[in-house]
Amino acid sequence: MATNILILSAGTRNKVVQAFKKELAHNGKVFATDCSNIGPAIYDADEAIIVPKIKDPFYIDEILGVCKKNNINGVFSLIDPELSLLAENADRFTEAGVTPIVSSYELCETSLDKYRMYEMLVKLGIPTAKCYLSMEDFETAQAAGEVDFPVFVKPRNGSASININAVESKEMLIALFHDFDDLIIQEYMRGQEYGADVYIDLISGKCTDIFLKEKIKMRAGETDKSVSVKDERLFKQIASFVEIVGYRGMIDIDLFYDNATDIWYLSEVNPRFGGGYPHAYACGVNFPRCIINNLNGRENPVNIGDYQEGVYMMKYNELCILPEDKLAK
Amino acid sequence: MATNILILSAGTRNKVVQAFKKELAHNGKVFATDCSNIGPAIYDADEAIIVPKIKDPFYIDEILGVCKKNNINGVFSLIDPELSLLAENADRFTEAGVTPIVSSYELCETSLDKYRMYEMLVKLGIPTAKCYLSMEDFETAQAAGEVDFPVFVKPRNGSASININAVESKEMLIALFHDFDDLIIQEYMRGQEYGADVYIDLISGKCTDIFLKEKIKMRAGETDKSVSVKDERLFKQIASFVEIVGYRGMIDIDLFYDNATDIWYLSEVNPRFGGGYPHAYACGVNFPRCIINNLNGRENPVNIGDYQEGVYMMKYNELCILPEDKLAK
Repeated sequence: MATNILILSAGTRNKVVQAFKKELAHNGKVFATDCSNIGPAIYDADEAIIVPKIKDPFYIDEILGVCKKNNINGVFSLIDPELSLLAENADRFTEAGVTPIVSSYELCETSLDKYRMYEMLVKLGIPTAKCYLSMEDFETAQAAGEVDFPVFVKPRNGSASININAVESKEMLIALFHDFDDLIIQEYMRGQEYGADVYIDLISGKCTDIFLKEKIKMRAGETDKSVSVKDERLFKQIASFVEIVGYRGMIDIDLFYDNATDIWYLSEVNPRFGGGYPHAYACGVNFPRCIINNLNGRENPVNIGDYQEGVYMMKYNELCILPEDKLAK
Repeated sequence: MATNILILSAGTRNKVVQAFKKELAHNGKVFATDCSNIGPAIYDADEAIIVPKIKDPFYIDEILGVCKKNNINGVFSLIDPELSLLAENADRFTEAGVTPIVSSYELCETSLDKYRMYEMLVKLGIPTAKCYLSMEDFETAQAAGEVDFPVFVKPRNGSASININAVESKEMLIALFHDFDDLIIQEYMRGQEYGADVYIDLISGKCTDIFLKEKIKMRAGETDKSVSVKDERLFKQIASFVEIVGYRGMIDIDLFYDNATDIWYLSEVNPRFGGGYPHAYACGVNFPRCIINNLNGRENPVNIGDYQEGVYMMKYNELCILPEDKLAK
């Protein structure tokens, strides 16, 4: 049976679009949307569709229209602000015969709010970086010897980074809180940074796949170079965590490993394809295949850690070049 | 005659390596170096060569050795800190029969020091953003009504960006000068940003090619999306400037256009391939061909503005995937 996939807000995620094209081959089509006709990824799909911005009141109606017109079987988004929107309207998609590949609304909201996430992790007893909502809270904790500079300062919501890796001084802290709203202060994690690409079966709710990579170099908040690794103990911890909390589909987890204490810290969960997922795909950890199986009523077998270690991923810039008259309308 | 090219510090500039490979076809080889074996661009060359860091005292000896061993005809670097080094040792390369494709030492030093560049542009009467070396100088100018927030704050040397686009407050200015050394404060340019890829013939010293693009979106200090445009008046201004100052080979110029006053402002010159050059190459503005011609004793004809307008460039991430045992040694 043909499977048609709709990828929302495709942006610059060409590799994800390409992966679905490859997996579907001639057995289904990939449709990709963007609100801009100069987002390159839509041009790698079978069909590029320009849609309104996600804040448009008729956005979901428009997307449902696209689904009906193209016999879409499954839909997902590649950007954070759309995850809750898709989850909130999950019933409307299901009623139209379309599976929204996303976690629950509540879980999307928690995952994208760094302070709510912190509170949830603390409640579950999962090690994570200490987190403060105000300069006063931070200074109280600092006086008590709980935390000290450097610290991370990030917007409480959203993945947009202020692009200062580590805040070293009270002067910078004051300036950031003066210039920006809704910041959080996070304990600086000194360990090695890792990322995990995780799939939770849409039918069984079981964690079926995990790909773990050591991050070697970051650039503009994204993993620029990484190498595949394995850790059986962490695999068990991740599988247990995502199943208890109830994530669904593909998610991306940021972690730190502290060598001195032999503890894994969980720092963030993005309930969508992570920017580094193409590394996992290149190593044979095939989430598009998992999704296509699920959309066709097939459970995926548990297959955690089925890839080669020591495989390096290095990103570089590729170009999509199009004259004005070839841009999507 | 076969032409062999050596590309130093290739890093993630795969598209530049690929362009030379394509232009040389079977009539020469491309060699590329990096101090790291997880820089992806070296793997697109005919031969990937791991070399010491540029600060190593024997670095130039090592590169000269690579040139001799591989009958290299021309050499250039893709990173700023290496330009002056190459220019300083130009004679050693020339004596070995290798053409260093780089501007003079003095001009590299000036171009990479934002304050010296500002002084040179002012002296030449070329419009540019006002520039201050200290908070005191800025505040004096601010009190005199010459300049006001927002401002750009950048390291005086080097292309590394502090990643704050515009500084809006005195608090942030204080924090930045507290945390970082050798900063400059630049007037915030409100105009549209443009980039020009320019070639100055190594033999005739004439400006032979200019590709102008409107920058649509920046990401981590690099042009992420751009569109080709033309402006005959600016072409003349650029050709005159680069010939008077004496640049050589491929350079990259950052510009702002102020619609209200109809003035072009020159903001920066990088005397090397710019990060956005592959857009020019895709539009047929062929610097590798110019270089190969020059290395073979042929002058290039003046051919400014020979490309199509309205061609869009959109960057996305491509991956180089290699298992540990396939990395260069």
